[in-house]
Amino acid sequence: MIITLKRTAPETAVENIVHSFEARNLTVHRSYGENYIVLGLVGDTTQLDDRSILANEWVENVQRVAAPYKLANRMFHPEDTIIDVNGIRIGGHEKIVLMAGPCSIEGLEPTLEIARAVKAAGADMLRGGAYKPRTSPYAFQGLGTEGIMDMVKAREETGLPIVTELMDAAQLDEFEQNVDVVQIGARNMQNYTLLKAVGRLHKPVLLKRGMSATIEEWIMSAEYIMASGNPNVIMCERGIRTFEKYTRNTLDPAVIPIIKQRTHLPIIIDPSHATGDWKLIEPVALAAIAAGCDGLIIEVHQHPESAWSDGAQSLKPDRFASLITKARAVAEAVGREI
Amino acid sequence: MIITLKRTAPETAVENIVHSFEARNLTVHRSYGENYIVLGLVGDTTQLDDRSILANEWVENVQRVAAPYKLANRMFHPEDTIIDVNGIRIGGHEKIVLMAGPCSIEGLEPTLEIARAVKAAGADMLRGGAYKPRTSPYAFQGLGTEGIMDMVKAREETGLPIVTELMDAAQLDEFEQNVDVVQIGARNMQNYTLLKAVGRLHKPVLLKRGMSATIEEWIMSAEYIMASGNPNVIMCERGIRTFEKYTRNTLDPAVIPIIKQRTHLPIIIDPSHATGDWKLIEPVALAAIAAGCDGLIIEVHQHPESAWSDGAQSLKPDRFASLITKARAVAEAVGREI
Amino acid sequence: MIITLKRTAPETAVENIVHSFEARNLTVHRSYGENYIVLGLVGDTTQLDDRSILANEWVENVQRVAAPYKLANRMFHPEDTIIDVNGIRIGGHEKIVLMAGPCSIEGLEPTLEIARAVKAAGADMLRGGAYKPRTSPYAFQGLGTEGIMDMVKAREETGLPIVTELMDAAQLDEFEQNVDVVQIGARNMQNYTLLKAVGRLHKPVLLKRGMSATIEEWIMSAEYIMASGNPNVIMCERGIRTFEKYTRNTLDPAVIPIIKQRTHLPIIIDPSHATGDWKLIEPVALAAIAAGCDGLIIEVHQHPESAWSDGAQSLKPDRFASLITKARAVAEAVGREI
Amino acid sequence: MIITLKRTAPETAVENIVHSFEARNLTVHRSYGENYIVLGLVGDTTQLDDRSILANEWVENVQRVAAPYKLANRMFHPEDTIIDVNGIRIGGHEKIVLMAGPCSIEGLEPTLEIARAVKAAGADMLRGGAYKPRTSPYAFQGLGTEGIMDMVKAREETGLPIVTELMDAAQLDEFEQNVDVVQIGARNMQNYTLLKAVGRLHKPVLLKRGMSATIEEWIMSAEYIMASGNPNVIMCERGIRTFEKYTRNTLDPAVIPIIKQRTHLPIIIDPSHATGDWKLIEPVALAAIAAGCDGLIIEVHQHPESAWSDGAQSLKPDRFASLITKARAVAEAVGREI
Repeated sequence: MIITLKRTAPETAVENIVHSFEARNLTVHRSYGENYIVLGLVGDTTQLDDRSILANEWVENVQRVAAPYKLANRMFHPEDTIIDVNGIRIGGHEKIVLMAGPCSIEGLEPTLEIARAVKAAGADMLRGGAYKPRTSPYAFQGLGTEGIMDMVKAREETGLPIVTELMDAAQLDEFEQNVDVVQIGARNMQNYTLLKAVGRLHKPVLLKRGMSATIEEWIMSAEYIMASGNPNVIMCERGIRTFEKYTRNTLDPAVIPIIKQRTHLPIIIDPSHATGDWKLIEPVALAAIAAGCDGLIIEVHQHPESAWSDGAQSLKPDRFASLITKARAVAEAVGREI
Repeated sequence: MIITLKRTAPETAVENIVHSFEARNLTVHRSYGENYIVLGLVGDTTQLDDRSILANEWVENVQRVAAPYKLANRMFHPEDTIIDVNGIRIGGHEKIVLMAGPCSIEGLEPTLEIARAVKAAGADMLRGGAYKPRTSPYAFQGLGTEGIMDMVKAREETGLPIVTELMDAAQLDEFEQNVDVVQIGARNMQNYTLLKAVGRLHKPVLLKRGMSATIEEWIMSAEYIMASGNPNVIMCERGIRTFEKYTRNTLDPAVIPIIKQRTHLPIIIDPSHATGDWKLIEPVALAAIAAGCDGLIIEVHQHPESAWSDGAQSLKPDRFASLITKARAVAEAVGREI
Repeated sequence: MIITLKRTAPETAVENIVHSFEARNLTVHRSYGENYIVLGLVGDTTQLDDRSILANEWVENVQRVAAPYKLANRMFHPEDTIIDVNGIRIGGHEKIVLMAGPCSIEGLEPTLEIARAVKAAGADMLRGGAYKPRTSPYAFQGLGTEGIMDMVKAREETGLPIVTELMDAAQLDEFEQNVDVVQIGARNMQNYTLLKAVGRLHKPVLLKRGMSATIEEWIMSAEYIMASGNPNVIMCERGIRTFEKYTRNTLDPAVIPIIKQRTHLPIIIDPSHATGDWKLIEPVALAAIAAGCDGLIIEVHQHPESAWSDGAQSLKPDRFASLITKARAVAEAVGREI
Repeated sequence: MIITLKRTAPETAVENIVHSFEARNLTVHRSYGENYIVLGLVGDTTQLDDRSILANEWVENVQRVAAPYKLANRMFHPEDTIIDVNGIRIGGHEKIVLMAGPCSIEGLEPTLEIARAVKAAGADMLRGGAYKPRTSPYAFQGLGTEGIMDMVKAREETGLPIVTELMDAAQLDEFEQNVDVVQIGARNMQNYTLLKAVGRLHKPVLLKRGMSATIEEWIMSAEYIMASGNPNVIMCERGIRTFEKYTRNTLDPAVIPIIKQRTHLPIIIDPSHATGDWKLIEPVALAAIAAGCDGLIIEVHQHPESAWSDGAQSLKPDRFASLITKARAVAEAVGREI
């Protein structure tokens, strides 16, 4: 950590600051410039709070050199984490995993029908929302437990593991018993109560990036889950909020190599939420594969125009099947399989 | 609601779409342009989901005319909501309310000391964090119940009502019994589980704007709380995330008249989180008062450089007192009192 | 165009507004709702200024249905524009074009050396900066005419057409005579004086997207060039500015299909400026190809660590050659050639 | 400047890097940490290019300590710059200056009429656009020289100095002869050709902040003008672009104290462009004054609903007069005069 002091700081103030760091077993190097005094801290700085240091009136600037995360950090864990979901392996050089299904679970029959269709097209897992975070309190809030059980039945018939969002720690047991991958939605990425709760689960967690979270904050949320005891975190990018109006969110494929370089966790991409427009899903999905992602999560619905939510960004099963064919070719071109 | 269809839409598709709206008791007006067909919907459109309509392949665009909120909407509730907290009234043309205190509660003695200092300076309520949302799992997470009880004791001595953040519905009873204003933090603005929970409380809720929430989404979160039974919502702006690096967040005072025009709820401003820099708090606080806010919430600490969190954005008590003197003059200039 | 009026508007005000549109040969449809009156305008609305309409106190909202651009609009020009640069064709289903070279031209010898290296690797054109837009007035501002002539000599030897940035209409003749593709940089995307000037050139224009321009504003800048007489515009995306700090800019591959759907112009991608980090160029370049771009523009330098500008985002020639090999495979997977 | 190297950097690589800085007369301090090597550079680092240093494969991070601007820097020029415009003084503790007038100049009679009205209300200068930067090539582009001459006549009659935007260096002589304050618009904030040109003028320059410029980039653009010979720069904030849709731009009053702390230049605020909505101009203008600005620039039009541009954000003269009355009270409350 690098701390810049005003050149006008009295020597006793500098000494006090230096001692306060030495008292925490850090080594401090000093450089005196014409306009600034610079302190270089060596040792474990994850214990320090940048903003407390900034509170000192002589401090001009604080710059962290080492990343604030440890368990997720590739530097201390060089090999890829590979996550096993009922025998399906995600991450490293494993096959690219395809999760597909409706935005909202809408009852048993439609769920079975979509599950069969996405399986036939080549999907590896079934996604679907039983508890739905909706901007409006007047919008459909999900079927809840009934929706979870519809997915369980779809798994019984098709063998597809199920991925669904947890919104409330009160449902933890229900998810531990019934769900294969527990999703934390973008709106709850910094709901630390929920992160600590899923840290105690024995199921992999799919952690969506928050709407305006930096990559570093997103990794810190993975660190929360890992520090609470659950090492099986799958990062899921769904785009960030910008001023652009022609898309729902803005998805930069650079996050894929960044997550791979800085952490050892798998990363999957959600082109449905990123674009908000079914016409844009295919090119964005192919881009994500070319950039090296470990999986895709895509909304598929038989009749998007009558879906109970998010029809605008759902593919019909035949378009999903055609996307997979193209995805397979791109995956092969970059040395991966689907 | 205005729906634009492609001009190439077959007449049967147009009929189907029109009928689907008429079936929901909406009246539909049609205009045929050279390149587009435009449908104007009249009636209660809050029941409709924009994105489901967009899923229809003939739909080019959906534009909402009426706001999606009802209970918070000034159009249906023209008079100001004034919220009473132990006799202190917030909103309308009432006195501007000052909430002040440390970022984190750090034990009984420091809490009493700050409470006395901010009261002496002119504060109306004591703020402080007992449960702390921290980006890092390794950072101090708050004293929890002990911190709440420290605040309760400070209220007993000073009479200042207390404001503190709720992060977990499991603490609902603790807050109902001990706390005067329940804060929902920026990171939980779209934690709908928690919003519904505080909707069942009998205490006012201070709802912070999410880091990248639009004003409309923020009002919709207030609507969640109100629709769950609690009409006493205080809006609190703390800046939004932008690309600018010289401040922690970007706070636009225009939100103050916007909230006043579109809703009937009080709005207070948090210049500490907005700027992240104690040197900027005073000018931003004065700006907020000039723009018409109903209150301020400010971090104050005796020794910011040794605060357990967020020292960089805390004022010392004497600087807070001097801010109040200036704030009083500005308030008077715009016809308000402090 | 859809105009929403307050329901409280007096009938004479509504009549005046309607007449003002009818006087411009527009047909106006009216719908009376419970809370709003909605006007639907049919006819050529590109002549109208949204913000003037909004000035009327009875107008609540103005929503454009038809795009504000005509010449660039795919709706009125369904076939792809293919741009010919000395026999190299860009756009439609043509081969993907590779432009490569140094950020700044640094003298004849280095220019010849890079030109030979990128040609050997498979590049189609030579890029390089002779006039440089630099954030600091103290930074190297480019070799100017000398740099242009270095590029001309490199073209003579290698046959590679040259692409370079124009910053000043005073250099128009120099560019008309010597340059093959004239680049308008991101910072000048809304320098309308310059856009009109290159509209009078007989050379293709590579138009970079502004740092925070919406896609619509970017297309409007292309429309400026086209309306001034030059139909040969190549769109070039280089990412937009967001709050994210791990990359220089944020590049969403969805812009590629969006530009293809809404306009008939070719689109190329600049992964060097988008990422600002040579380690991220390859995955982002492959993503862009998978998403359907018509070309790439990449910074290549023999010794990035001693480049006069932007070394951090320059590839060495061997890494560029290896990128092309992979790019070829991805292009083939999506039915294109390089 | 602080440079972080990977701990795995070979000693010869470290030596080479250190020598390259010492060769530029910089002193280099080294700290060896567990995971990183940190170099602290002392001396004049404004000559260095961060991104070239980053190109070295052993460099992990580069952090500037000293600001990259000198002439604008308060550290080297502690006293306030006060700019004299025909006897009106802007900056420091001088009276707050009010610039007002139409978005576009629309002919002699309307210009005279507005000039009289804003003078009567208390304005100090007349603003108006003769050369207009418009997003659409089909929109009104300004009256040009005729518009300038209309303003000149308004000045002759009323004595109000005139402020208008320069878009093309070709008009430099016209502006030198006729205009009192030369405005550089937000879209041209990084048009370095134009910045250097106005650096040679003998008239004060009003420099608008770019739509997505950081405060540092904005100051660097002032530095361009100053380094080219013109020390008389007035900073003008008009909001930045964010995701928020209820306002045209997002204006943070914190920029006022930031510009005052970091530079010695005057700063004025444009609440018309910031909000895009006449109903929001007054509260934002009052906020700016409370935060310490040196002036306001506001669009005023007799008949906003028939203005040739930007009517939505123009005040009528009587509303402008009423704003000034309130502004005077707020100015007095913070120890300034209007």
